[in-house]
Amino acid sequence: MKNKRPAASLTIKTEVVCPNDTNPMGILQGGRLVQWMDIAAAVCAQTHAEKICVTASINQVDFNAPAKVGDIITIRASLTRAFHTSMEIFVQSFAKNVLAGKKYLISEAYFTFVALDKNGKAAPVNTVKLVTLSEQEQFTAALKRRESIVKKKKKTQQLLS
Amino acid sequence: MKNKRPAASLTIKTEVVCPNDTNPMGILQGGRLVQWMDIAAAVCAQTHAEKICVTASINQVDFNAPAKVGDIITIRASLTRAFHTSMEIFVQSFAKNVLAGKKYLISEAYFTFVALDKNGKAAPVNTVKLVTLSEQEQFTAALKRRESIVKKKKKTQQLLS
Amino acid sequence: MKNKRPAASLTIKTEVVCPNDTNPMGILQGGRLVQWMDIAAAVCAQTHAEKICVTASINQVDFNAPAKVGDIITIRASLTRAFHTSMEIFVQSFAKNVLAGKKYLISEAYFTFVALDKNGKAAPVNTVKLVTLSEQEQFTAALKRRESIVKKKKKTQQLLS
Amino acid sequence: MKNKRPAASLTIKTEVVCPNDTNPMGILQGGRLVQWMDIAAAVCAQTHAEKICVTASINQVDFNAPAKVGDIITIRASLTRAFHTSMEIFVQSFAKNVLAGKKYLISEAYFTFVALDKNGKAAPVNTVKLVTLSEQEQFTAALKRRESIVKKKKKTQQLLS
Amino acid sequence: MKNKRPAASLTIKTEVVCPNDTNPMGILQGGRLVQWMDIAAAVCAQTHAEKICVTASINQVDFNAPAKVGDIITIRASLTRAFHTSMEIFVQSFAKNVLAGKKYLISEAYFTFVALDKNGKAAPVNTVKLVTLSEQEQFTAALKRRESIVKKKKKTQQLLS
Amino acid sequence: MKNKRPAASLTIKTEVVCPNDTNPMGILQGGRLVQWMDIAAAVCAQTHAEKICVTASINQVDFNAPAKVGDIITIRASLTRAFHTSMEIFVQSFAKNVLAGKKYLISEAYFTFVALDKNGKAAPVNTVKLVTLSEQEQFTAALKRRESIVKKKKKTQQLLS
Repeated sequence: MKNKRPAASLTIKTEVVCPNDTNPMGILQGGRLVQWMDIAAAVCAQTHAEKICVTASINQVDFNAPAKVGDIITIRASLTRAFHTSMEIFVQSFAKNVLAGKKYLISEAYFTFVALDKNGKAAPVNTVKLVTLSEQEQFTAALKRRESIVKKKKKTQQLLS
Repeated sequence: MKNKRPAASLTIKTEVVCPNDTNPMGILQGGRLVQWMDIAAAVCAQTHAEKICVTASINQVDFNAPAKVGDIITIRASLTRAFHTSMEIFVQSFAKNVLAGKKYLISEAYFTFVALDKNGKAAPVNTVKLVTLSEQEQFTAALKRRESIVKKKKKTQQLLS
Repeated sequence: MKNKRPAASLTIKTEVVCPNDTNPMGILQGGRLVQWMDIAAAVCAQTHAEKICVTASINQVDFNAPAKVGDIITIRASLTRAFHTSMEIFVQSFAKNVLAGKKYLISEAYFTFVALDKNGKAAPVNTVKLVTLSEQEQFTAALKRRESIVKKKKKTQQLLS
Repeated sequence: MKNKRPAASLTIKTEVVCPNDTNPMGILQGGRLVQWMDIAAAVCAQTHAEKICVTASINQVDFNAPAKVGDIITIRASLTRAFHTSMEIFVQSFAKNVLAGKKYLISEAYFTFVALDKNGKAAPVNTVKLVTLSEQEQFTAALKRRESIVKKKKKTQQLLS
Repeated sequence: MKNKRPAASLTIKTEVVCPNDTNPMGILQGGRLVQWMDIAAAVCAQTHAEKICVTASINQVDFNAPAKVGDIITIRASLTRAFHTSMEIFVQSFAKNVLAGKKYLISEAYFTFVALDKNGKAAPVNTVKLVTLSEQEQFTAALKRRESIVKKKKKTQQLLS
Repeated sequence: MKNKRPAASLTIKTEVVCPNDTNPMGILQGGRLVQWMDIAAAVCAQTHAEKICVTASINQVDFNAPAKVGDIITIRASLTRAFHTSMEIFVQSFAKNVLAGKKYLISEAYFTFVALDKNGKAAPVNTVKLVTLSEQEQFTAALKRRESIVKKKKKTQQLLS
């Protein structure tokens, strides 16, 4: 096991919105954006873990502002915390119109990935070496997000049982 | 404005998992599944609203079980509640191996869509005529989900301000 | 071998016409529609047979009405008859403009699929349990369609020999 | 209006079978092949007519032999006859394994295309200048195929009325 | 080893420019055209070698004239020379507007492919039987192009060492 | 007109090699890689110019090392020099196997883009503010590369005339 910095797995993915990525009004589809974010997050997780990883969950995703055909989309995926066999990745998406040239946030979400061994079983991942203050804050918040999701699931199961 | 039953906008989308939809271990990518779910949800929303609709948000998505190359994916999108200009859509995804023939739930999520007029502004949508008990329960729960998200956002904004 | 109802393998596939699915006048390409119909028919055949199936033939396909970018396409594939190792599937495609909201038939065709075993050889399929009158009519007509095709092929071979 | 030779609109389209074009046994999907054939036929029709053309119908398509991942597919589309606003195109598809190097016919079909003017209405097309014996035979047979389809449709309509 | 004519591996690939192949002004992307040219060249190389081949290099590619959505693209790939385990392929791309009907050269380039054996090692290829004067000229020029590239690389390496 | 640093238009694009991006031996196709490099270069050019840009040429591209299915591809596009209406972009592609974790250069090339105004005519671009030594070297070398290409073209035209 290695102790690796989040900066070592930071992943940038650039896309250009094509006609097939949009709805009939030329607005980027939410699901298409999530697909790009998932690929960026998977690369980030796999780079940290040095193992094949699969998406376990995606938290609440809001689409704050639309992107249009021809816009440049920049996706930034960074590791917030590594648990035993899973990792939380924070993904932000920005759009920019070529002529206007101003970049703005269109969406952000937390993805959880699980590392797999050769037989497809969950496998332990490298630990995280925190350096910056922002990295430390994200690391602490990641645990709270995880506990909140676990609590919510238990509640749902009680309601259903 | 019409008063329409959820059954009138129920949308079924069937897909077969292709190699390009999977990771190097042949497991369906989470982001690809969300893209299909978003298309099914958009069709459901547009059928109810009779207007072009865009994804406003997707709530917590869990990937409970993997699907593999060649598996049949069935996606079921149904309206739970219509607000003034937005709608909540419940989407469930099932997988089935051709030889094993047993269908199982792989993921479910709530999508929120906003209807747009010709100028891209939010536009009022048709109301919902509830008939079954399950429709009434989903209708009530949709409001709670909405309030919980609004409360969470306010909390985040207070922390940031 | 099981005796299964056609209702058990009924397959619905929903698509939205994207720019790349159309010709330069924005009309859905015939070949693209046939590809979607073939996937729906394959899922229907595989669900009935519980085996991997391949397309053996597609009968005369007419494109009665055009569909345009943004239209919702609903494809409905249902089993008409199972022979020893092959099945006939009836596929209907409907289009609907989001704003107009009226669904209309754009194409229909009969597909024949052959079930394969692990070595890629033709393999026997489950039999069909007929219940409705319409199912019985389609079952009878399927045999006539098959005989007419076999007769036509013989005629062509005589002309060529 | 011009009087043009079929040789002037002969269209060759070469493809390589990719994993996403196949079923889980690595066999080229029938619907995918028809999509490629439709594009080749559309180019042939548009080259003859010098107008945008849409697929009106595809006659019985048989899949005589399978093609596999990595195989080279050669599609040959040639005009058989031009009617007033429509054209019949004969399309043949051949497959070749790179190592075996032997080309074989996998499918053939007759496509009918209609030429459109700027308003999307059926528009007259160029006439055909026949030179070879084979061109003359296809020209004569095209009329018979058309009459046989028209007769069949009338029969179906009588049964339905 | 066989001695084969360039005519035996001549490859024609026809495409229609779709919206997703273009930039926001509807002009065919250079990279998309190179991808199509690479596939045509790979088919040409594999047909000559009767072995799986991979792209080793592409020489200077100029885009002389734009192509637009709906234009018909014809790509022509022909063998110029076979070396021991590699081949040079000359690829020309033409565009034609359906209504204008005039074909014009948009790009041309020389591709070098290497043949591989089952273990992925470079493998000897069939020799070339030259017949026409143009074939002989291309054969002689191919050697000069190769020597010029080798010389250039040595120069770069000297500058770097 | 602005005077902008190359760092302001540096573009990173991350991709994962999918089955459809490869040849039958699972090796990334050269043409597919060039397509990704062209998109990254276009984003870099458009970010510098704040105008829509089209590819004018791509210089000699070598594929030094193969990439395989599942490998992570990182593409880095940076501006070397802006001329009056055109820009030269240097693009490098790296591959990394998830398990091996070692990044290596697979290809590099110089792309030339031309900026367009609203009518599709060549338009002036922002100038470059050089800071680092490496930026100054690339700036000087870009002019030599341009002159060498212009000289070569003249030579070809003399041979042809």
